Amino acid sequence: MVGYNFMGKAHSNAWRQVNHFFPDLPAKVEMHTLCGRNKEATQKHAGIYGWNRVVNDYQALLDNPDIDIIDITSPNNQHAAMAIAACQSGKAVLCEKPLAMNLAEAEAVVAAARKHKTINMVCHNYRRAPAIAYAKQMIENGDLGDRIFHFRARYAQDWIVDPSFPLVWRLQKEVAGSGSHGDLAAHLIDVANYLVGPMKEVCGLMETFVKERPVLAEVGAGLSAKAGAKMGKVTVDDAVSFVGRFKNGAIANIEATRFATGHKNGMEFEINGNKGSIMFAFEDMNRLKFFSASDPAGKQGFRDILVSESDVHPYWKAWWPPGHIIGYEHTFVHTVADLITNVVQRKNTHPTFEDGLKCQQVLDAVTASVKTRSWTKV
Amino acid sequence: MVGYNFMGKAHSNAWRQVNHFFPDLPAKVEMHTLCGRNKEATQKHAGIYGWNRVVNDYQALLDNPDIDIIDITSPNNQHAAMAIAACQSGKAVLCEKPLAMNLAEAEAVVAAARKHKTINMVCHNYRRAPAIAYAKQMIENGDLGDRIFHFRARYAQDWIVDPSFPLVWRLQKEVAGSGSHGDLAAHLIDVANYLVGPMKEVCGLMETFVKERPVLAEVGAGLSAKAGAKMGKVTVDDAVSFVGRFKNGAIANIEATRFATGHKNGMEFEINGNKGSIMFAFEDMNRLKFFSASDPAGKQGFRDILVSESDVHPYWKAWWPPGHIIGYEHTFVHTVADLITNVVQRKNTHPTFEDGLKCQQVLDAVTASVKTRSWTKV
Amino acid sequence: MVGYNFMGKAHSNAWRQVNHFFPDLPAKVEMHTLCGRNKEATQKHAGIYGWNRVVNDYQALLDNPDIDIIDITSPNNQHAAMAIAACQSGKAVLCEKPLAMNLAEAEAVVAAARKHKTINMVCHNYRRAPAIAYAKQMIENGDLGDRIFHFRARYAQDWIVDPSFPLVWRLQKEVAGSGSHGDLAAHLIDVANYLVGPMKEVCGLMETFVKERPVLAEVGAGLSAKAGAKMGKVTVDDAVSFVGRFKNGAIANIEATRFATGHKNGMEFEINGNKGSIMFAFEDMNRLKFFSASDPAGKQGFRDILVSESDVHPYWKAWWPPGHIIGYEHTFVHTVADLITNVVQRKNTHPTFEDGLKCQQVLDAVTASVKTRSWTKV
Amino acid sequence: MVGYNFMGKAHSNAWRQVNHFFPDLPAKVEMHTLCGRNKEATQKHAGIYGWNRVVNDYQALLDNPDIDIIDITSPNNQHAAMAIAACQSGKAVLCEKPLAMNLAEAEAVVAAARKHKTINMVCHNYRRAPAIAYAKQMIENGDLGDRIFHFRARYAQDWIVDPSFPLVWRLQKEVAGSGSHGDLAAHLIDVANYLVGPMKEVCGLMETFVKERPVLAEVGAGLSAKAGAKMGKVTVDDAVSFVGRFKNGAIANIEATRFATGHKNGMEFEINGNKGSIMFAFEDMNRLKFFSASDPAGKQGFRDILVSESDVHPYWKAWWPPGHIIGYEHTFVHTVADLITNVVQRKNTHPTFEDGLKCQQVLDAVTASVKTRSWTKV
Repeated sequence: MVGYNFMGKAHSNAWRQVNHFFPDLPAKVEMHTLCGRNKEATQKHAGIYGWNRVVNDYQALLDNPDIDIIDITSPNNQHAAMAIAACQSGKAVLCEKPLAMNLAEAEAVVAAARKHKTINMVCHNYRRAPAIAYAKQMIENGDLGDRIFHFRARYAQDWIVDPSFPLVWRLQKEVAGSGSHGDLAAHLIDVANYLVGPMKEVCGLMETFVKERPVLAEVGAGLSAKAGAKMGKVTVDDAVSFVGRFKNGAIANIEATRFATGHKNGMEFEINGNKGSIMFAFEDMNRLKFFSASDPAGKQGFRDILVSESDVHPYWKAWWPPGHIIGYEHTFVHTVADLITNVVQRKNTHPTFEDGLKCQQVLDAVTASVKTRSWTKV
Repeated sequence: MVGYNFMGKAHSNAWRQVNHFFPDLPAKVEMHTLCGRNKEATQKHAGIYGWNRVVNDYQALLDNPDIDIIDITSPNNQHAAMAIAACQSGKAVLCEKPLAMNLAEAEAVVAAARKHKTINMVCHNYRRAPAIAYAKQMIENGDLGDRIFHFRARYAQDWIVDPSFPLVWRLQKEVAGSGSHGDLAAHLIDVANYLVGPMKEVCGLMETFVKERPVLAEVGAGLSAKAGAKMGKVTVDDAVSFVGRFKNGAIANIEATRFATGHKNGMEFEINGNKGSIMFAFEDMNRLKFFSASDPAGKQGFRDILVSESDVHPYWKAWWPPGHIIGYEHTFVHTVADLITNVVQRKNTHPTFEDGLKCQQVLDAVTASVKTRSWTKV
Repeated sequence: MVGYNFMGKAHSNAWRQVNHFFPDLPAKVEMHTLCGRNKEATQKHAGIYGWNRVVNDYQALLDNPDIDIIDITSPNNQHAAMAIAACQSGKAVLCEKPLAMNLAEAEAVVAAARKHKTINMVCHNYRRAPAIAYAKQMIENGDLGDRIFHFRARYAQDWIVDPSFPLVWRLQKEVAGSGSHGDLAAHLIDVANYLVGPMKEVCGLMETFVKERPVLAEVGAGLSAKAGAKMGKVTVDDAVSFVGRFKNGAIANIEATRFATGHKNGMEFEINGNKGSIMFAFEDMNRLKFFSASDPAGKQGFRDILVSESDVHPYWKAWWPPGHIIGYEHTFVHTVADLITNVVQRKNTHPTFEDGLKCQQVLDAVTASVKTRSWTKV
Repeated sequence: MVGYNFMGKAHSNAWRQVNHFFPDLPAKVEMHTLCGRNKEATQKHAGIYGWNRVVNDYQALLDNPDIDIIDITSPNNQHAAMAIAACQSGKAVLCEKPLAMNLAEAEAVVAAARKHKTINMVCHNYRRAPAIAYAKQMIENGDLGDRIFHFRARYAQDWIVDPSFPLVWRLQKEVAGSGSHGDLAAHLIDVANYLVGPMKEVCGLMETFVKERPVLAEVGAGLSAKAGAKMGKVTVDDAVSFVGRFKNGAIANIEATRFATGHKNGMEFEINGNKGSIMFAFEDMNRLKFFSASDPAGKQGFRDILVSESDVHPYWKAWWPPGHIIGYEHTFVHTVADLITNVVQRKNTHPTFEDGLKCQQVLDAVTASVKTRSWTKV
């Protein structure tokens, strides 16, 4: 694995936990090597996360014949290059989302994976929240009917409402690629692609509410904004909001923001079909709301399904009795569980790099629509 | 109608509105006479509420041959005597709950109604919230199964948490009869009787958290507690909490309190049967939560039913399109609508004085269990 | 009053009830005359709703010197002409929304009102839900901060999801003007104008999911779709979805639909400011969710405010104790209460015809943006 | 550790995870030895859970000088004897709840711990749900005021509503001690003791709704009920419901049941003080509802606090960004994290065996009150 920050922590946990809860997997994980540029920090995090070895050179990771899977959790602007190199190495590759900084990069990654017949996966972990995986089953079973009308979603956070919050890397285009768009809307778009299907065209807006922020400086051991710090330009979007059309005739309304005061990780969506609807909110990720127009008249209403029945709900058999809820990190455990099975069987499962590319296509179309102030084909 | 305070206002509205929303009723209401002891206040409220005439002597009301229905909304300690006199008058009688101050009184009222073949009703208006009326239908249809296990209810308010709140009549046993017990728990007991059936035995506690309060004095035009007011003893319960058994084997857990900080009119109950459960909360009175164990595995969950479909939900045809909600006062309109039909047809509908008596039997059994610190038969 | 259908019923109730709950109003309502074209139906509804007289000719209504206020609840395509005539009559005018079928009509109505110095009001009744009226106060008090970032709203219904639902007047452009746009989005736009301010530009889409429906035919006494009925074209939108920018820098995301299976009257919005946020849902109209970033760290969270405290929450003094909720119809009572005061004082209060015009400006800009597939100035 | 079923799985996970998320703990866990009677099963589970060695004799575990902490997750009827033996071994002891089958046993365990100066803890893991740990801080800070009025709690499950569900060990008194009482009510009582204080007296009922169930027989590899199985007597309670008084004057209402159709792990409680209230529901364990009577008039309401702010909410620093929720198993990780610190520092932290004894005192008083049908001192 390369990288050891937020995503590195979540991925490490998944690798560490997966065999303990999915004991029937066809392979046992060895957490072989953690790769990072900073020697000291890499060593320290390897110790904390449970990695057995450390390297500081990515190529050394790729060259090690004992390693079967490369897991990329580095900053966004390194994803594509690292993923391509990993494909060339012949190993299986798990890449944290976004797959790339833009469409061209994403296409290059997909091409590399195809060329090298790489077992590949992009880590859109929300697909494997039990409620979302179950929503997929329900839609395929026709529980929402044979026609979808609406996909409506919002990803709401509030961690940069304060204008004195400093200019971290996530607010700089050259490192992050975009702001709430690639960070948050990407999750909604992937869910839309997964549950509803591909989009046809989009049109929207982006806004940067706070245009300048204090520049980070070295303060003591780390980086932080000093009083009286120089101001720097925020080069990414604070919020994005767009409408769109799916190829199957459904319409989309998607919004992502870091300025929704009071919302911490408010990833929410609703899908309305001609026979039913579902609603999901990540902060209540163990629940799926389901309205069935097939229920008897008078007894219709959104059902509050606790998605924790081990015999029917995806992935739950691995965990606890009904109602003993799981959390954010478990979506990563499910992801690597499925990946391991596929690596052993030499086949791909969703979300592949192609799914990452499809997500990037929508992201880029939205960005283009913002620039041209008009509708843009996906 | 006699009385013009909170209940007088709610009842007047019901009489005034009922024909406008239930145009097919077999009679048209004439709001004939309002009766009250205070001449000026009675006159004023008759004007506000829409009563055509005023009397200050209850007997004059009873003696007027043009009046068909007597509606009693006076203080609790006058209910029984007034109801008995009304029965003797040969008119139909609607009596605000509680029917009486105690079991002996309640029995006398029922005896009078029987003797005079009175068309009678006690105003347990919550029975005619559409959600509760529909819950009754569901239980009778077997939607909860053929066996009830639990009735769990709480009525939570918080208006006297502050110890400087004065010693109003509702806190004096000689006028109010009891505190949260007769005022709030009575509603829960009536719903329990209505939806689950009669109780067999009970055991509980009562508590008066604030034992003394400032005495009311005449201040200007009205009554209020003056700074430095004399303290008087609170002679009713602030809270009551009891467990019990129904004759059908279900068990009851009931609590009522005026000391649940944050709850305004938190009348809530849940019923668990072997095939399903329902939950109701008055502050969301247009909703009924329903869990059906007959739903397919994986898709079970409490449904949030908005009880506003005119073709299936009780009383809704009178009002607005689905989702255009109604409120507290409408339960009274439904009550008098049904009463009017019954008066014309010379028959009784629930809740009759007998139902009021059955409620009183449970109230008295709880009170006895508190005194004797042991289980008491109903 | 002219008209006696859904809105006629709601307005009649308001006129009938207002003095009983607002006894201190400077005038007492006399429900003088109901006007409608169909003699029999007008007579019947006058009886049900409590109107004293009936006319079948609108001009007769305008000519009657005993009438002070004209209330227009006829179909949408008659609003403008009737409002203009009413202005000319010198009486005060209340017009149900929408004020007009398009911008030109709306401007003509406003011009007439100005010319004749008409006391005028357009019935955007949701402004006077206590929670929304209180939200207005909170925003003006700075409870959300000094900067608004987001207005996000949806109005979701589901009554025409079934393709066999017939081609009623609300689905015909020549009578209704538009579909969910003017019927539902108009409410959201008015709330946006009221709480956030004027919009600058918009861009969006409209969709008609079911393009043909069975034509209504006379069946027995009324209109209904017969089996094997001829199909007719739906000429209005089933759903509208758009993004926009306010003049104050906030961004808007607004959607209205009659195809959100499971939603009955799901009018919902959220506003995020730099110091707090509010959320409202009409089906829980007695509640306002409020997040305050000024609450102590660790104790921040959306508060579930029951807007029923008579000493602080707008209009509640007229009604019941805290937690004894009110409903849809009460918003109309509050509207006419304020109108009566203003008529007596010869001044206007919001929402005036100008407010109706401002709403129409946004509606028209959205429609134009849909046609041109590009951003449109308001 | 001894035992490898549900609790063994949860405890193992805690030991395995704790250093990875709490890297600053003063000791590093070595998962030394798993003890179980069944050789094969113990070996298998040691592999799955991550234990390095296996023994089949409990004494061997106690005798191993390399082991510092004994963790007991065996069936309830073995807790006391094993805990006493563990105390004698001089090692630190973590014992899954209940500490014992009855008061006498619990007292013997506490006596042993005292005599041997054992570092001891009973695993009431819910105390270390961040929301409950934070509730404790809030109560101590006076956020609920200086007086508590009510503690109201229910633990609702529904896994044995079906009468064909077999007679598992949890339904047999000689193994389980009691039914919902010791299994579920014990959690509520411990929370009550922790957050409100000791109880003074209790009175309640128990009920066994289904009195006979199919006896388990060996079917293939495991135990299960065969069609036509012999029926055996259920010797524990299906539900318990009681009222009580705390020494500080608050009153308690507590109910636990396995017959609340629709509830999976519905552990819920509410506490009302004179300045505020809190509500908690385990199925939404990342949230704490808080009402503050100190909020400005008009803006009071239950706040929905997402207890996931790393700088203020207990234990959250170890995990993820705000709103990225955690689950059931994390309460065990927090428990062993605190235990490890205390073992190194040679001091005890709550809940100690004494806390387990206090819980048992209430449990036994309730049982006595059920038998004697009267109030019982704790």
